[in-house]
Amino acid sequence: MLSEFDIIQRYFSHPAPGAILGVGDDAALVKPRAKMELAVSTDMLVAGRHFHYDADPRELGHKSLAVNLSDMAAMGAKPRWATLSLALPEAMVSAKGNWLEAFADGFFALAQEYQVDLIGGDTTQGPLNICVTIMGEVQAGKALRRSGTRPGDDIWHSGELGNAALAVAHQQGDIKLRAEDFDACLPALNTPAPRVALGQQLIGIAHSAIDISDGLLADLEHILRSSNVSGMIRMDEINCSASLKSYFSDSAAVRCLLAGGDDYELCFTASPSKRKKIAGLAQELNIPLTRIGEVGEGEGLVVLDAGGNPLTLQVKGYDHFRKG
Amino acid sequence: MLSEFDIIQRYFSHPAPGAILGVGDDAALVKPRAKMELAVSTDMLVAGRHFHYDADPRELGHKSLAVNLSDMAAMGAKPRWATLSLALPEAMVSAKGNWLEAFADGFFALAQEYQVDLIGGDTTQGPLNICVTIMGEVQAGKALRRSGTRPGDDIWHSGELGNAALAVAHQQGDIKLRAEDFDACLPALNTPAPRVALGQQLIGIAHSAIDISDGLLADLEHILRSSNVSGMIRMDEINCSASLKSYFSDSAAVRCLLAGGDDYELCFTASPSKRKKIAGLAQELNIPLTRIGEVGEGEGLVVLDAGGNPLTLQVKGYDHFRKG
Repeated sequence: MLSEFDIIQRYFSHPAPGAILGVGDDAALVKPRAKMELAVSTDMLVAGRHFHYDADPRELGHKSLAVNLSDMAAMGAKPRWATLSLALPEAMVSAKGNWLEAFADGFFALAQEYQVDLIGGDTTQGPLNICVTIMGEVQAGKALRRSGTRPGDDIWHSGELGNAALAVAHQQGDIKLRAEDFDACLPALNTPAPRVALGQQLIGIAHSAIDISDGLLADLEHILRSSNVSGMIRMDEINCSASLKSYFSDSAAVRCLLAGGDDYELCFTASPSKRKKIAGLAQELNIPLTRIGEVGEGEGLVVLDAGGNPLTLQVKGYDHFRKG
Repeated sequence: MLSEFDIIQRYFSHPAPGAILGVGDDAALVKPRAKMELAVSTDMLVAGRHFHYDADPRELGHKSLAVNLSDMAAMGAKPRWATLSLALPEAMVSAKGNWLEAFADGFFALAQEYQVDLIGGDTTQGPLNICVTIMGEVQAGKALRRSGTRPGDDIWHSGELGNAALAVAHQQGDIKLRAEDFDACLPALNTPAPRVALGQQLIGIAHSAIDISDGLLADLEHILRSSNVSGMIRMDEINCSASLKSYFSDSAAVRCLLAGGDDYELCFTASPSKRKKIAGLAQELNIPLTRIGEVGEGEGLVVLDAGGNPLTLQVKGYDHFRKG
């Protein structure tokens, strides 16, 4: 059986070149650069709730950092440092430590890709729980908040939505996918690609941004409420895979697209004068950026169907204290 | 049943005057002052491991922040901002929310005492788990590390050691305390007082510091190993309650004192030339500061008994992956 000290030494003591002091003291020491603010976010992933107990540990290591990187993206921040706290069942800490090794591999592969230093953490025995706190730098006064949008703004989202939720719906038996469609959806669920570069590039372009973790409608509503405005989006403008579209006759698929959660794409708003710039960004970063609606006065969010009629929706975003 | 949004709104949305942006966006925004480094630490508390499921929620709120403040103290940092992630069993999130209300009360009472802003977090359903990340400011280049001590330094600790561990030993049936002694030990276990002011005052005085969370011997050994030195302490110089002393014939009590953990006092080292200054600090802060030994060349830690003979110890510090 590995000790707590062994676990940290063996799996989590990577160099932290961007920190003054990394793992191994009572606290780490870092220093944001001048004229930078520090963006701070935290996410807790619980076995049986956010992932299955038998989830692939490498993918889990990736995802536990990715969901936090996505929060940095949504602020336009450059992620710099992270802490990782792990509660682990005894069985996962075998002397061979395969689970831990794979988890750490997935975590550090993504950390390295984004030059994020792991600077601290905690390991303890308990029901499997992964809590990551991330810190990033953003130019003072420039962060992308939820509250900055104005009537007349365009509403945009990045990537394709709904794939992760569709995979979950299939796993839960809410919908039956063809094997090839399920396989195509899995990477979105298990190894999401946080839109870190996009977020930073949207500074000075977007008026507001959020990452879509609880479903497009719920997250867009956060923007609208924070900004005291209303929104209208067109269902058939939302970018999703042809595969997802092919299941639209099943309301569960529509629910996945609009309210599924786990997309980790960005939803943002910008003045129509920025359309060309945004199209340029999409090309430069090779990420689909899709305009799906407009911000208006007042409050509320309306979704129009292909005929221009408001959809009556029985869908809500994902709430960790409500059932599916 | 409260939603995740309700929980955050109702219990965890306090003003954060020291932050640029607090709870409610994808990330919080803060800015350390010029010439300051940011000290960052995180601790995860798991039900059944660090506390009982029926622990008083107010005390738990206090303790989950206190153990993190203690890490700031050990670095000499002024705590400024914290994030709180909570996994909660469904039963604890009743519509009345008494558990959450009491937990938040305990957390914020201590946060207010130390002017710490809660700037973010996460709530989800799951086995009870509390993960706090704390950020503080420390003068650039001045943080108290574990690695700064030198041969000839004195070894000191703050407060009284062993009380928290003695209460746990009684609860676990390893020792039988008189009712009044158990009662006297409980505050040390349930509502520890982090040595935040002391830590900051020790900057420029101490060569190294650590907070005693895993037991005096284990934590002092961290200092000695990090600094490549040896240590000698005298058992009968260690400051403990008369009540704890009265159980010394039982080896379990000695184990509590030396290796019990959960003290959240500081162990630090300083040049003998600082003895007067440290005595002055003890008076100013009204905290007992006790000199218990010396740092030497080489490696290892020796504990001497009252007769000056080395104790043979079968005790180790607390390891979260080993049994008591």
